[in-house]
Amino acid sequence: MRQVFLHGERDIRVDDVVDPALENGIEAAGRDAIVRVVAACVCGSDLWGYRGVKPTPKPRPIGHEFVGIVEEVGSAVSRVRVGDFVIAPFYVCDGSCLNCINGFSSHCLNGGFWGSKVHDAGYANAAQSERVRVPLADGTLVVVPGQPAENMIPALLSLSDVMGTGHHAAVSAGVGPGSTVAVIGDGAVGLCAIIAAKRLGATRIVAMSRHADRQALAREFGATDVVPERGDEGIAILKNMFDGIGPDCVLECVGTEESMDTALRSARPGGQVGFVGVPAGGAELPIDTLFGSNVGVRGGIAPVRNYIEELLPEVLDGSIQPGRVFDLELPLAEAAEAYRAMDERRAIKVLLRP
Amino acid sequence: MRQVFLHGERDIRVDDVVDPALENGIEAAGRDAIVRVVAACVCGSDLWGYRGVKPTPKPRPIGHEFVGIVEEVGSAVSRVRVGDFVIAPFYVCDGSCLNCINGFSSHCLNGGFWGSKVHDAGYANAAQSERVRVPLADGTLVVVPGQPAENMIPALLSLSDVMGTGHHAAVSAGVGPGSTVAVIGDGAVGLCAIIAAKRLGATRIVAMSRHADRQALAREFGATDVVPERGDEGIAILKNMFDGIGPDCVLECVGTEESMDTALRSARPGGQVGFVGVPAGGAELPIDTLFGSNVGVRGGIAPVRNYIEELLPEVLDGSIQPGRVFDLELPLAEAAEAYRAMDERRAIKVLLRP
Repeated sequence: MRQVFLHGERDIRVDDVVDPALENGIEAAGRDAIVRVVAACVCGSDLWGYRGVKPTPKPRPIGHEFVGIVEEVGSAVSRVRVGDFVIAPFYVCDGSCLNCINGFSSHCLNGGFWGSKVHDAGYANAAQSERVRVPLADGTLVVVPGQPAENMIPALLSLSDVMGTGHHAAVSAGVGPGSTVAVIGDGAVGLCAIIAAKRLGATRIVAMSRHADRQALAREFGATDVVPERGDEGIAILKNMFDGIGPDCVLECVGTEESMDTALRSARPGGQVGFVGVPAGGAELPIDTLFGSNVGVRGGIAPVRNYIEELLPEVLDGSIQPGRVFDLELPLAEAAEAYRAMDERRAIKVLLRP
Repeated sequence: MRQVFLHGERDIRVDDVVDPALENGIEAAGRDAIVRVVAACVCGSDLWGYRGVKPTPKPRPIGHEFVGIVEEVGSAVSRVRVGDFVIAPFYVCDGSCLNCINGFSSHCLNGGFWGSKVHDAGYANAAQSERVRVPLADGTLVVVPGQPAENMIPALLSLSDVMGTGHHAAVSAGVGPGSTVAVIGDGAVGLCAIIAAKRLGATRIVAMSRHADRQALAREFGATDVVPERGDEGIAILKNMFDGIGPDCVLECVGTEESMDTALRSARPGGQVGFVGVPAGGAELPIDTLFGSNVGVRGGIAPVRNYIEELLPEVLDGSIQPGRVFDLELPLAEAAEAYRAMDERRAIKVLLRP
């Protein structure tokens, strides 16, 4: 089958590899499934490797978001059946360990990530490919009722990562009815965080964005205000918009030192920063600033698997439309162009069709 | 009157100063009160200056916790009356600004701290003295119903800071019914944090303590377990006590780099650290650790004024007994010995009687 590999800085290739197969002879045998990928996509975090911010010492398969149709299941799989349309979160989890039960399946004690070996459950293919072997299929995959219409595919795919991750930013920041919110980052996650903040009841949502097309989408998703300024200027404007003290909640959806600094210094005393931007090096969190402001910080690898059941009905009935963050669709064979488009910010998020 | 001054490293003196008086001719005139101090005390944070960790370039009045009897009130004071027994939080606040209303009166937009000038409200004396001028008296002071019995004084005084600060650690860590909790620090605040965790419904509370007398008090306050080990060893034991993943909540009540490191690495994935130890220099918070564990961090200068009304009834009916953290009482004139006793850890907390 065809699978996307990152060979080095700005070097994306679609290579031929052996098709994945159900694995026997391992401890977790019988608990896997083979899924034919209907749609995958490129993540903002994939760009850290693509841009060389994170080194790529040897070629590695890439991609961690996909939806597809189950082709085979192991003998111990009971929830997922051949022919089901499924959403995969961006990680593998068993759904039954303490961390999964606590709502943090992204820290599953028996789980792992696409493109690597998962504990005693064998290899999990990366997602930008034609087929994926899913270890711990019953815990990992969410079955979509029926066969979704073609135009629902992007929104369903967003539940793999960006919609759940934006939701995690909002949940981590404690967004609730009446909250005032600022969202830093106008990438796919930041835009989904706006959707999340609105559905959780925020009454005022400021999108920090400098791009006209993204500003427009932010407003359609629920942003009530747009602030293009950054750094000290952006902070001053934000403070001023909220009685001089700042918003209750700030959702940090970028991962740079500057964006976190803006988040920490924007929230009102006693406010909360929810952060989901993968930290791209840079500074640690200034404890004196936090202590002196009582601004809390919470976030990390989003437990999107725990959120899919909550969000799926609203995706299916169209009341939230996170699929709109996909503004370019390409065949898997053109993955290199997909990466270029995102790197050059010509696209918010690119959907790939095997 | 007599007032305690820190003159330099390990140099505490009780000096004569002019009695404070109601101030006229300032913007906030008429809103102050003069309180005769019935009891004050020494705080763990006072030791940073005493030990020279924080420099003392010139002598400064010290102390920020007191209870007393109102002797005079300004013309605009309405809630507080002459003769009232009052508790002062460790800061001045108006009770009516946005931060106060949001529950964070320690960040009052018009407030300040004892021993310094408070915005447009004039000078606030430090608390280790015979009398204190209280700016913004209606916002700052809490009136205790009736005249409390002598044996209630220590518990009431604890509401000035340590009991409310321990409560803030527990609230910031999200302690609730069924929570599992570890408390780092067996000083007065850590011990009060145990009281707070228990009354908020925690079912298992681990006191990290190496001192037999403090371990005993911790157990009386509600600790179910005691762990004397620190650092990596303490973390491993804590993880092991809670199914290998760690407790839900960790209350950091010390303020050193080591104690925060222990807190961050002990909490379970998705857990929460509540921190109230005044940061004593040292490292910033490691963002990769937080991101990789989804452990939240929240805390800071405790809004104890907002908590007094909630905690006072339980102090008055004896259902919580935070006054027991005072294990030494001295006349104000012997303040130097009070500091020595706390510095040498001969006393948990020293009460001073003017």
